[in-house]
Amino acid sequence: MYLICSDLEGVFVPEIWINVAERTGIEGLRLTTRDVSDYDVLMKQRLSILKANGLKLKDITDVIATMDPLPGALQFLDWLRALTQVIIVSDTFVEFARPLMAKLGWPTLLCHGLTIDAGGAIAGYNLRQADGKRKVVQAFKGLEYQVLAMGDSYNDINMLKEAHQGILFRPPQPVIDEYPQFPVATAYDELKVIFENILTADRGVGELRDGRSTEIHSFQI
Amino acid sequence: MYLICSDLEGVFVPEIWINVAERTGIEGLRLTTRDVSDYDVLMKQRLSILKANGLKLKDITDVIATMDPLPGALQFLDWLRALTQVIIVSDTFVEFARPLMAKLGWPTLLCHGLTIDAGGAIAGYNLRQADGKRKVVQAFKGLEYQVLAMGDSYNDINMLKEAHQGILFRPPQPVIDEYPQFPVATAYDELKVIFENILTADRGVGELRDGRSTEIHSFQI
Repeated sequence: MYLICSDLEGVFVPEIWINVAERTGIEGLRLTTRDVSDYDVLMKQRLSILKANGLKLKDITDVIATMDPLPGALQFLDWLRALTQVIIVSDTFVEFARPLMAKLGWPTLLCHGLTIDAGGAIAGYNLRQADGKRKVVQAFKGLEYQVLAMGDSYNDINMLKEAHQGILFRPPQPVIDEYPQFPVATAYDELKVIFENILTADRGVGELRDGRSTEIHSFQI
Repeated sequence: MYLICSDLEGVFVPEIWINVAERTGIEGLRLTTRDVSDYDVLMKQRLSILKANGLKLKDITDVIATMDPLPGALQFLDWLRALTQVIIVSDTFVEFARPLMAKLGWPTLLCHGLTIDAGGAIAGYNLRQADGKRKVVQAFKGLEYQVLAMGDSYNDINMLKEAHQGILFRPPQPVIDEYPQFPVATAYDELKVIFENILTADRGVGELRDGRSTEIHSFQI
């Protein structure tokens, strides 16, 4: 039996922090793990900026609520969820993601959490566990699922490696170059073809892996 | 962070096999694990009856598609999924459950699977793993979730025992008598009160988990 673990930002919704930065006009919130490699340092910086600007959870979720899923994301996800089980595995915080999860029809989301104080301010954050994406795949493998994983960037690689089959969706060029073992899709229709072949034909994932092409867009099963 | 593992039949939807028996008029399909204690023997018997009556998967799913979730189930589930992550853990087969999952808004379903032959007949079934309900709870505990589990009958007890908190929903009297350690709810509004108390009283992690500190993964500003 198959189960899909998928990243959220860049796959189904836009990058949340970049949008919050744009919509609040706070330049300091534009920094990502590409600028500050230590996620812990980055998050402390982001939360300090929110505090300095007097922004509470509701202010941020109000901004996030103005965002929409990527064009076609909801239709693709609806199609996929009718076919198999889909688990969203993200490094975001459940409180931030909530307005977008509502727009996606509440798929299961495994991610991190925030600590909110009595006044509604963000008092801190709780990373659920280290290397959490990989561990989610391991857990479902332990439940006898054949796990297909998809994501767009470096923080997804351990999840893709751990899965029976990893798939890159709209990754930046360095990720494509560095991980030629993963097929690359740039449109939901390409993902549909990949998943349809695996899920409805029920061909073994070993067969898929052996038959992969490292050439972008020419992935055949 | 919390996550809820819930049984399906008796909690959100009626008993599937009993309804299939009623709607097809095939008396032999009325038998449950209360009549035939060995699930494997019972399932083989059920599949033999389907075969003898010339019923294929689509005939059964057409019958199941005429069923509806229990009154109030969808509203309660929608409420719960907006609050936290909900995983349906069932001993049914994903192919049978699909029409009902569509009516419930496609929550994640972890259960067993059928083998369908080229002609659409049910050729066999695949139990995902032994003691699967308990193992799902163990897996999410391994992902650092505080697991709340609910179910209605004997096949849920291992799941309820393994969870940080087990809850019985509309159980038969012998189950209530045998397992007095679990709170009992008979209406969705009672479940709402139970979950609201647990989920909103503690927005952080670690409180229920044997007093274990979560400082390693936490940061307070």
